[in-house]
Amino acid sequence: MKYGGTICALTKTEYPLIQGGMAWVSDASLAAAVSMAGGLGVIAAGNAPPDWVETQVRMLREKTDKPFGLNIMLLSPYAEQVARLAAELKVPVVISGAGNPDSYIKMWKEAGCIVAPVVASRALAVLMERMGADFVIAEGCEAGGHIGELTSLVLWPEIVRSVSIPVVAAGGIFDANTVAAAFCLGAKGVQVGTRFILAEECNAHAAYKERIIKARDIDTKVTGRITGHPVRLLKSPLVREMQRVEFEEGGAEKIEKLGEGSLMRAVVYGDRETGSFMAGQCACMLDKVQPAADIVRELFDVDRIRSVLAAAAGLLEAGI
Amino acid sequence: MKYGGTICALTKTEYPLIQGGMAWVSDASLAAAVSMAGGLGVIAAGNAPPDWVETQVRMLREKTDKPFGLNIMLLSPYAEQVARLAAELKVPVVISGAGNPDSYIKMWKEAGCIVAPVVASRALAVLMERMGADFVIAEGCEAGGHIGELTSLVLWPEIVRSVSIPVVAAGGIFDANTVAAAFCLGAKGVQVGTRFILAEECNAHAAYKERIIKARDIDTKVTGRITGHPVRLLKSPLVREMQRVEFEEGGAEKIEKLGEGSLMRAVVYGDRETGSFMAGQCACMLDKVQPAADIVRELFDVDRIRSVLAAAAGLLEAGI
Repeated sequence: MKYGGTICALTKTEYPLIQGGMAWVSDASLAAAVSMAGGLGVIAAGNAPPDWVETQVRMLREKTDKPFGLNIMLLSPYAEQVARLAAELKVPVVISGAGNPDSYIKMWKEAGCIVAPVVASRALAVLMERMGADFVIAEGCEAGGHIGELTSLVLWPEIVRSVSIPVVAAGGIFDANTVAAAFCLGAKGVQVGTRFILAEECNAHAAYKERIIKARDIDTKVTGRITGHPVRLLKSPLVREMQRVEFEEGGAEKIEKLGEGSLMRAVVYGDRETGSFMAGQCACMLDKVQPAADIVRELFDVDRIRSVLAAAAGLLEAGI
Repeated sequence: MKYGGTICALTKTEYPLIQGGMAWVSDASLAAAVSMAGGLGVIAAGNAPPDWVETQVRMLREKTDKPFGLNIMLLSPYAEQVARLAAELKVPVVISGAGNPDSYIKMWKEAGCIVAPVVASRALAVLMERMGADFVIAEGCEAGGHIGELTSLVLWPEIVRSVSIPVVAAGGIFDANTVAAAFCLGAKGVQVGTRFILAEECNAHAAYKERIIKARDIDTKVTGRITGHPVRLLKSPLVREMQRVEFEEGGAEKIEKLGEGSLMRAVVYGDRETGSFMAGQCACMLDKVQPAADIVRELFDVDRIRSVLAAAAGLLEAGI
């Protein structure tokens, strides 16, 4: 079974599946594993300097000649340098997050990159289409890390009706059922983040993976709404302190100070006290570490998706 | 075409469709129109005293002998009296919101009512099943009015796997595509709120309906997280003031004071300055006032749902 369609044609992958770009988490090891399994593996630049990014791209290219993506976080102090590097390295797919990349799109296109901005509202999606993006990734606020305000169920159809380029659905996708739902809402592909933290090939600390496996439905929190850059992460002593500051003291600066270096402390050291264990709400549904290839296979289990769709159609008839 | 299945059997309706119980909005006029169209019309008690509720139930029963529901908002000062009234009046379906109704369930069941609590987390859903609820309504935070924290895309499958009673999906459902998505995620029926504010038979002020029609994707806000009872509503001068208090001054009491009477001022008087125009995020997708029966028909447009499911299945093949 081949997953044809615009996204596979653009990304040159077997499945219309993009691995989410998660700072510190999405390195060459994870990205190569996903690309080799038929999805689009993505290296996340996060706040890292260009030389780290260049090393990761080289490492990935040593492992596989499959296509891959580079996620550029536009709030990074190195955003512009990494943006230029992406063009120099002729990264197959450039994905931008946490902002408006319009000043870079022409450069990326001239370098032959496919350009796919992450968007969380109609206005940015429409602008991205006008600026020449190949497709957009519409990410609902159930996602982990930096989030917008719209949920996937509303954001996806809103973006689908607003642009004519393809829309990849992100935020809350973790299994074949949610893939089927995304297709029902007009998406042509999906991006999956949190579940790939549980890939064997993901270098995140074992304590990070354990936090995700043990997470209950109400265990993710959103901090930093007061700063204008809200972030979803698993509850922890750090999050309690951030929420206390946010609700009792006020003061965006203190929140940002608390957050500095906290994601690295979670991913690299598994620091339960002061680490930021960023994760989407779907963490509650995840229960095991497994090879990236198994995750890809389960997400795009054709028989499962077909039976989900058939069961939905069956609800139209009497009997269920 | 008949929509069989557990929800229709329990609610004795033609479609597995429940009209959301919206305080001040969901009166006998709207509920009767929805019930006559084949869905389950619902009267919302909100904070109203029992005599108002009794009048509305009588008015509805004068209009139609179709089944209907009564939504009891458990934060109401009259919650206990309205709960007893529901049993006395043998309301066909009792729906509870904004809390845990376990002390009333036995009474409702003995009166022959079908009991369907609205839940926003796994823990309450599991408790409701144990206490004898007939089904639960899992409402994601894209809904208007009082909300929980989980989005529909994660909440629905989380509740579906956690209970063996049927699950009705709520929060963000506004068309046949979102109905299809809910079915894909295991729901056996849907509850729709915001779209029914635009029913011709809905008595909400014309200014309220206009606000919904004009809403953009980013126009709903959440206020009152600091109070522990967050509410989603359209932005307005009142909301700006609430957010200023929440982020700058702090103080749950002042937020609650600002909110007092504000929903009534929006629904009855269309007061753009001090009214609370509660609405779900899907308000951005709604564009016209139409008869309730047309809304029901469009939500359960079988050909549309079938083509949505077929298109989703088509994405599995090459060519889209």
